[in-house]
Amino acid sequence: MKGIMVREAGDQDYEFIGKYTVETGWASIPESEKGELNKQEWTTHMLEVFENIRKRETSKIFVATDQDQVLLGYLFVGEGTYWITGQRCGYVYDIFVKQEFRGKGIGALLLEKAEEYSKEKGYSNIRLMVFADNEAATRLYRKMGYRAEAIHMGKALS
Amino acid sequence: MKGIMVREAGDQDYEFIGKYTVETGWASIPESEKGELNKQEWTTHMLEVFENIRKRETSKIFVATDQDQVLLGYLFVGEGTYWITGQRCGYVYDIFVKQEFRGKGIGALLLEKAEEYSKEKGYSNIRLMVFADNEAATRLYRKMGYRAEAIHMGKALS
Repeated sequence: MKGIMVREAGDQDYEFIGKYTVETGWASIPESEKGELNKQEWTTHMLEVFENIRKRETSKIFVATDQDQVLLGYLFVGEGTYWITGQRCGYVYDIFVKQEFRGKGIGALLLEKAEEYSKEKGYSNIRLMVFADNEAATRLYRKMGYRAEAIHMGKALS
Repeated sequence: MKGIMVREAGDQDYEFIGKYTVETGWASIPESEKGELNKQEWTTHMLEVFENIRKRETSKIFVATDQDQVLLGYLFVGEGTYWITGQRCGYVYDIFVKQEFRGKGIGALLLEKAEEYSKEKGYSNIRLMVFADNEAATRLYRKMGYRAEAIHMGKALS
């Protein structure tokens, strides 16, 4: 796809980013757990978490646009701590590409930007979390050299 | 294996628990990241993390012993928050069975205790994290009804 550009997010982009952060977040909650949640309260919680992380000095959001500055996706990177070593690392909080623009290399472009940023910050590693059922994303990360380190497992208690 | 008992940990057990928390923690760090670490500083960090979680009102440690009260393993459970829903859940921080006593159902016994405890606390779900290369543990968790929810992936930056 021609004309894709990646740049730092500005104030004009946060409506788009917030909308899809909420939308993809909600979609990723198992149906069995949605019953316990009030969507409006959850949305407030989600946007608070987002804002808190965004305000950190180490956080950065990149957006991908077409040549007309139409937003196609975004990536949210910052500083994580690998709990087992206690060492800081680059951490990708979220990565999103609009449905109709997937499979065009936009995710890879955004991820390269996050790696570049993490290197500049002096981190030796970059990490991220992917939902276990998100095969397309997992495939992209593997292709870009990411390896599974740990798996979160869960069970409903009856 | 006959005569296995599971009980809450007491002061006399913390030396055993601390020793293996440090030992298995260190063993789980990739060789490529050990170079950045000072083992003594890391041990202090690890024991601090352990103590901080242990002191929480919601935390509980169970130990498995043989009929002579010899320690065979332990499980550390407490309260987690599932970041995506913001809901509290039971969270297994650590589970350990001594090498020579593995494959005898001790892990399952400890895990059942953690599930029982989490139910008593009113959590609808229990969660844990397993290192991606720990096949024996992953197999046990699957057998006990745990499903992969999210995968942590990482990449070294050169």
